[in-house]
Amino acid sequence: MNATSTPKKITVRFEPIGAEIRVDSPISVMLAAAEAGIALEHPCGGLGVCGKCIVRVRGNHVEHSQADQHLLSPEELEQNCFLSCQTVLTGDTVIECQAGRETESGLVVIHGVNAPIELKPRVRRVRLEIPPPSLSDQRSDATRLLYAVKQAGILADRVHLSCLQTLPQILRDNQWRVSVICREGEIISVDPVGDDRRILGVAVDVGTTTVVTSLNDLETGEELSVRGAANEQLVYGQDVISRVNITLDQKSGIHQLQEKIIQTVDRMIESMLEETGYPSDSIYLVQAVGNSIMQQLFMAIDPAPIAITPFVTAVSGLLQFPAHTIGLESARHSQISVSPVIAGYVGGDIVADILATGIHQARHPSLLVDIGTNAEIVLGNKDRLMACSSPAGPAFEGGHIFHGMRGIPGAIEAVWVEDDTIHLKVIGDGDPVGICGSGLIDALAVLLHLEVVDETGRLRARDDFAGPEWIRERMGPFKKGHSFCLTCEEQKPIRITDKDVRALQLAKGAVQAGIRILLDQWGISLEELDSIFICGAFGSKINPVTAQQIGLIPPIVLEKVRFLGNTAHIGAKRMLLSDKELNMGVFISEKVCYFEVSGHPSFQDLFGLSLGFGRKWDLL
Amino acid sequence: MNATSTPKKITVRFEPIGAEIRVDSPISVMLAAAEAGIALEHPCGGLGVCGKCIVRVRGNHVEHSQADQHLLSPEELEQNCFLSCQTVLTGDTVIECQAGRETESGLVVIHGVNAPIELKPRVRRVRLEIPPPSLSDQRSDATRLLYAVKQAGILADRVHLSCLQTLPQILRDNQWRVSVICREGEIISVDPVGDDRRILGVAVDVGTTTVVTSLNDLETGEELSVRGAANEQLVYGQDVISRVNITLDQKSGIHQLQEKIIQTVDRMIESMLEETGYPSDSIYLVQAVGNSIMQQLFMAIDPAPIAITPFVTAVSGLLQFPAHTIGLESARHSQISVSPVIAGYVGGDIVADILATGIHQARHPSLLVDIGTNAEIVLGNKDRLMACSSPAGPAFEGGHIFHGMRGIPGAIEAVWVEDDTIHLKVIGDGDPVGICGSGLIDALAVLLHLEVVDETGRLRARDDFAGPEWIRERMGPFKKGHSFCLTCEEQKPIRITDKDVRALQLAKGAVQAGIRILLDQWGISLEELDSIFICGAFGSKINPVTAQQIGLIPPIVLEKVRFLGNTAHIGAKRMLLSDKELNMGVFISEKVCYFEVSGHPSFQDLFGLSLGFGRKWDLL
Ligand code: FES
Ligand code: FES
Repeated sequence: MNATSTPKKITVRFEPIGAEIRVDSPISVMLAAAEAGIALEHPCGGLGVCGKCIVRVRGNHVEHSQADQHLLSPEELEQNCFLSCQTVLTGDTVIECQAGRETESGLVVIHGVNAPIELKPRVRRVRLEIPPPSLSDQRSDATRLLYAVKQAGILADRVHLSCLQTLPQILRDNQWRVSVICREGEIISVDPVGDDRRILGVAVDVGTTTVVTSLNDLETGEELSVRGAANEQLVYGQDVISRVNITLDQKSGIHQLQEKIIQTVDRMIESMLEETGYPSDSIYLVQAVGNSIMQQLFMAIDPAPIAITPFVTAVSGLLQFPAHTIGLESARHSQISVSPVIAGYVGGDIVADILATGIHQARHPSLLVDIGTNAEIVLGNKDRLMACSSPAGPAFEGGHIFHGMRGIPGAIEAVWVEDDTIHLKVIGDGDPVGICGSGLIDALAVLLHLEVVDETGRLRARDDFAGPEWIRERMGPFKKGHSFCLTCEEQKPIRITDKDVRALQLAKGAVQAGIRILLDQWGISLEELDSIFICGAFGSKINPVTAQQIGLIPPIVLEKVRFLGNTAHIGAKRMLLSDKELNMGVFISEKVCYFEVSGHPSFQDLFGLSLGFGRKWDLL
Repeated sequence: MNATSTPKKITVRFEPIGAEIRVDSPISVMLAAAEAGIALEHPCGGLGVCGKCIVRVRGNHVEHSQADQHLLSPEELEQNCFLSCQTVLTGDTVIECQAGRETESGLVVIHGVNAPIELKPRVRRVRLEIPPPSLSDQRSDATRLLYAVKQAGILADRVHLSCLQTLPQILRDNQWRVSVICREGEIISVDPVGDDRRILGVAVDVGTTTVVTSLNDLETGEELSVRGAANEQLVYGQDVISRVNITLDQKSGIHQLQEKIIQTVDRMIESMLEETGYPSDSIYLVQAVGNSIMQQLFMAIDPAPIAITPFVTAVSGLLQFPAHTIGLESARHSQISVSPVIAGYVGGDIVADILATGIHQARHPSLLVDIGTNAEIVLGNKDRLMACSSPAGPAFEGGHIFHGMRGIPGAIEAVWVEDDTIHLKVIGDGDPVGICGSGLIDALAVLLHLEVVDETGRLRARDDFAGPEWIRERMGPFKKGHSFCLTCEEQKPIRITDKDVRALQLAKGAVQAGIRILLDQWGISLEELDSIFICGAFGSKINPVTAQQIGLIPPIVLEKVRFLGNTAHIGAKRMLLSDKELNMGVFISEKVCYFEVSGHPSFQDLFGLSLGFGRKWDLL
């Protein structure tokens, strides 16, 4: 009896929409909704902290999570209200959407380095008093306007046609005193002085799983609102490769995927505007970042060649275009800017990571690691930047692991030994139904510590193990190999198999080899590193100690290791708020020396050397 | 009984459209249609040479014109077919449109100087073979495309998003051999080699009365088709000032006027595309020129301040924008370029005139005169350019003249003395119903020659005239003054009154004063002029000898006077076909030193001195 290996299909029905899908059990309501193509609001990105993603659940016995207890009122609890992101479904269910309270301001905890930023947005407002024309000064309205703007210290050399159309009247009706908004050398709006409309911009991090947006005041840098939500493309598959496959299978695939992500972002922006009360046309800029495939899908650019050798993007430079060209209705008057990328598997999100961590300005080299299906690794300082992408595979996300699952309620997220027994921490505090990435790293560290797994990665047979009985009794043959059971008698058995250990070993080997090849290319030892930045959602959940024990993080003093969370969004915001940062992003994308590891012999060698679990790295 | 002074109203009904209007009689079908907002096709611009503007006329006795006899078949003549541009209505009529033959290629006689042009269009095609990517060369598709374009000698630094979307597939499906189209530094289309779509551009001269368009091959410079048609804005008034008044009277006036001109141009472009069989998306560029008010109305830019002191345009520089921003559906994928202007009353059409005549490249100074309600005058050579606009008033267009009318059928277009009698030439060869500009100039010259008008401009009373009886009998008191009758007994009397003479005197005085003030500012005598170019439709119809006799054209050897017709369209074509010419247009617009005559004392002095009919100009 094993719910993960041969997942039971359950039927989930969403009311009042009437959508019904059959999904693998267990699944959170949040993901089930995404797969049904229904955008539930998840302001905090499913972290279980905002208490906004309220649904009512009928028909299936579900336990309230700790977050439910914490964030919902007694009435709500009694009325079968649940937090969508914290609620795992195990049987047929009817979900009533919009059953909750009115939502207030979202709350997303975003950590990051984020050095102070010099506000220098591409959109600027200036108030002008322009000398009126006369028979001896017949320069055109546009000429005198541009001259006045220039005198105010703003570079602009043209006026948008939509402004010109009403320019003569606005100037004369307001005695030549106007408030002017310029964007990238172009005057895009001329209004009476006293019109105090705010100049807003949106930063978007288009993640494969989660999208984060923020609404920002471009004149003050203030973040007015922020949202996190599931990428509605999840309907079409969990990882980038399955999305690319959609584009290959169906002629309209690219457009379907674009529609989903535009829809996601549109809903998030609309929600932020609704919360803050600003109109759509106060958004002048949108800065988007994402991995190369996500960025291309955002713009409906065929992503297929990124997925196959030689892994080439359609475009690597900065792109800027009016919002209507991609149909982003929520910010229809804005200009969209999409980050440059470094390579097919080192995208605009990594450019943003670099900007957020500031490693490109540091004197001493630091390492930046963003672990997902691919681990993007950057090594650099102000003089030099190198990057590679190492094929870690899905093991750290629970993929191809016997009891693996993503980090949703029911997943074992931490494992440790105390008092001669195995302790588990389960997301949502219910019974364990599987194990996610951070749990797997802990588990592997425990098995290494207990010498159940040896330095070569072999999970010993019970007969081959001479240790204490409380360990031995968890060991045993499984399928054609061996396994170790994490759970105790009365729980559903969650096992780590020798195949799982092998998968994790390959994954950490890939990351390690990627790090080592950059250190090797640079000619630097671990000790010389100033910091190691672990970026991305996954990184913020792992235990640095166990990650170091299994060799995923290099063996340096832990003070040097910094876990930063969603740095991609922070970097996007920097590009949004400062022209200098955007230019720096372009500079970085061109400056980074990309090292392609695929098929490279020295990477293969290092990969072989990186498979073991010894803590010695410096054999270069 | 006088049809012109108190014009009879007649009803004209257009079938099968069902539109009905009441208009002043006499009126040509062409203008009646324009006033009814119906776009009849007039491929040759109403010159009566193409034979395409066939309509059937019912209910009102109309004579066939000479052009009808010449261009229509006997069957058509019998079936009451008429050429719309040559047919003058004098009573209630029903017009059947689309009663004629299938139209073939249009025929417009366009004269002009038009020096050989170096083809250097803003849109270029290049065929490329691009090295495919590999693991050791992972540059993005866009990067390698831009690099190949650069190697082919074309400057381009970006790829339009619509191209990027399909770029990966097109490159790979065609083994990296593609045909690329670039516009102004941007790659706008990537197609398989062998796709031989032509790269076309449209030149548009937006005249107040007539619009001329041509369809041109940007790679060969070949003119594929040309059209002339009435500006549908005529519905809202004959001259620019009455159109500006519409924008002041009605809030939506600007947009109504824009709609009319866009409709006019749309129909003309569609007709050219239909004739040549090319699709709309082969039009990549549209180059428009016109006077400042027409240009602003074309773009829906408020033109009101141009019409009142200090006569300021909203914009003077070159404007470029995508066609969809002004709704030009017939060329919806094109980029529109609107000429820079020199001043409120020296517009993009004069910039085009200068380009077409080439005075800006000549060693010796020449004079350029474009006569309409305002006379635009340019004096210049390669080193220096000066311009002014002199308020000639509508007299030369037949406005404010007792029997005045525009140059349409029924108008006296030439007057001369032979064998002691007055000879008249009437447009359309029917009975005279009025007199147009060229006829007025001739008539005034005749009156000066016969000494009926003296050098001060006084039309003598009959008693005050001692000349032969055949002259005296045409003279006589009229209203509170005197008049001279041009027609003979059996014809409707067409008189020149002393007030008419005064109006013409003021008009020619204004032109003369404008010319003289520029010569004065420059410090040059008439004899030193290399040429005098008379531009525009009006200029191509006047008799240079009589124009010189009344002092409208300076007294220099007639070989130096050149009548060029529609140079504005020719100049627009030059800007369309060559980037160099467009840049030259921008340069000219900035270089021309504009002299504002309004309220200028030295212009007033010269104006006074220019009223007489003596032939001495050089009293400077
Ligand atoms: S609690 Fe915030 S999304 Fe669920
Ligand atoms: S004959 Fe050509 S327009 Fe009438």
